[in-house]
Amino acid sequence: MSLRFKIVSLSSKLFFKPALARIRNLQRLRSYLDFVTKLNGINPKGAVYEKSVVSHNGQTVPVVWASLAEPSQSQVLLYIHGGGFIFGSADTHKHLAADIVGQLGIKAVLPNYRLAPEHIFPKGFDDVVTSYQALLEMGYQGHNIIIGGDSAGGNLTFALLAHIKANKLPMPACAFTFAALTDMTNTAESILENASKDCVLAAGRFDEMARVYAPGQDVKSPYLSPIFADLKGIPPVLMQASEGEMLIDDSRTMLKVLTDQGVDARLSVFGNSFHVFQILRGLVPEADQAICEVVGFIKDHMPEAKR
Amino acid sequence: MSLRFKIVSLSSKLFFKPALARIRNLQRLRSYLDFVTKLNGINPKGAVYEKSVVSHNGQTVPVVWASLAEPSQSQVLLYIHGGGFIFGSADTHKHLAADIVGQLGIKAVLPNYRLAPEHIFPKGFDDVVTSYQALLEMGYQGHNIIIGGDSAGGNLTFALLAHIKANKLPMPACAFTFAALTDMTNTAESILENASKDCVLAAGRFDEMARVYAPGQDVKSPYLSPIFADLKGIPPVLMQASEGEMLIDDSRTMLKVLTDQGVDARLSVFGNSFHVFQILRGLVPEADQAICEVVGFIKDHMPEAKR
Repeated sequence: MSLRFKIVSLSSKLFFKPALARIRNLQRLRSYLDFVTKLNGINPKGAVYEKSVVSHNGQTVPVVWASLAEPSQSQVLLYIHGGGFIFGSADTHKHLAADIVGQLGIKAVLPNYRLAPEHIFPKGFDDVVTSYQALLEMGYQGHNIIIGGDSAGGNLTFALLAHIKANKLPMPACAFTFAALTDMTNTAESILENASKDCVLAAGRFDEMARVYAPGQDVKSPYLSPIFADLKGIPPVLMQASEGEMLIDDSRTMLKVLTDQGVDARLSVFGNSFHVFQILRGLVPEADQAICEVVGFIKDHMPEAKR
Repeated sequence: MSLRFKIVSLSSKLFFKPALARIRNLQRLRSYLDFVTKLNGINPKGAVYEKSVVSHNGQTVPVVWASLAEPSQSQVLLYIHGGGFIFGSADTHKHLAADIVGQLGIKAVLPNYRLAPEHIFPKGFDDVVTSYQALLEMGYQGHNIIIGGDSAGGNLTFALLAHIKANKLPMPACAFTFAALTDMTNTAESILENASKDCVLAAGRFDEMARVYAPGQDVKSPYLSPIFADLKGIPPVLMQASEGEMLIDDSRTMLKVLTDQGVDARLSVFGNSFHVFQILRGLVPEADQAICEVVGFIKDHMPEAKR
């Protein structure tokens, strides 16, 4: 483990996890966690961001477009940020998306989907679906779109794939997730087992998240817990997660589900790392290696995206 | 999953697994499995193999050197083949090693370590240790050596690392394993759970393997079950394994053990693949992608090895 990684792990345990554990007011929690998350965001050299909106069927979603110099106009990454459906934004994650698409010579679009508690399920999910349909309407072909997301954004990635399948929309080229939340029943063993080891997530807020995001709804819905989704026929998926994190079982179970459904799926588990450590790209070598794996995976499944 | 992968999975279920399940005579089993394994071995273009011996302290081990055109003379991969300690040889695996080192511009050496039942533990293991010490004696520096192995060879990889640590020998640059056997207590859940799904391994022979390889010995010895080994301080490790295989838990437990000991470890789990599918490189794209990951990992930890 690099010294830098040790320092950020400790910082996260000192400044992120306790806040997540203790701040009860969700709006205050959001501003604090957004602030801390942005602290780690190092923009790749030459990154260009553009605020905009995308729309489909009268629905409009604010987005941020991210790219490095002279991206191809044909391929796009739809990146869905994490933050427990409560915090996070295109701004907290745009540097991560810019790094990935910069290495591919393409563009990324990050929807600012509506967050809980102000907006409950399926509002945020609808915004993600609208974003995908807007891309299709703009002329992006399915096989020129990649979908990716972290944590709650990984949940929305699989939910979107289930929606694409159910509605027979054009499939994307491939998808990837970082520490996806896939099981909102919150019964995975690793949630208890890794509670103290996890440098980021805090026990006791998982059930609250489900209550705040989808009050009174069945957490076994495939759009809330994609481990129950019909995903047969979706394109190749690369998942990454960390050995000691509370959500590791979510990725493991998802790999089993995808494999059983015949999906070309793969899970890369990093030891000595933590929940969505990939966001530290540009800062710690481990995160850069993880991004490198994602870029290689995308190149394998979208040969046009090669810088 | 590629069509080729489907065909080879089926072939393995038809020609490999039933033999492994049924042939009782171990010498007959060896010749049959060696024959079938070699069928899939496609040599990389330009591969050069050379039979030789290496020696240390009066001990001699027959080996095969493998490389592609004009390898560097400073770096070397010590590749330890699998085959349940009973079958397999440098010949069954040399094309796999040649492919890896060919992409790095270095050499590989594959020891023909002694096999059971003729030679019981620690004879084969001693040959592996001798091979490593011979490389050091030949002038290879630890940081210019990579250790890799599959299945039982993955077991020997970790056993060798434990020996290197215990005896304060120079550490290698990094290590990798394909579907490593790490727990000879054979109590992992996946051994039962995946028994019918596994296209290669056959239930009911695990205990026999332990009895044949190390009769009357304690399977909890760290050199038989490296999940009990002290590996603190070993260099970075990349493990690969397949979701539906009987030995998947061996890699998962090993990742946990390594991470708890502070080792920079990573496990890449491939869905829809099978035990040591990497041996099909050159034949199915999935295997080539897995090899590509190993090559990238080695380049990260041995910057000199870049073609």
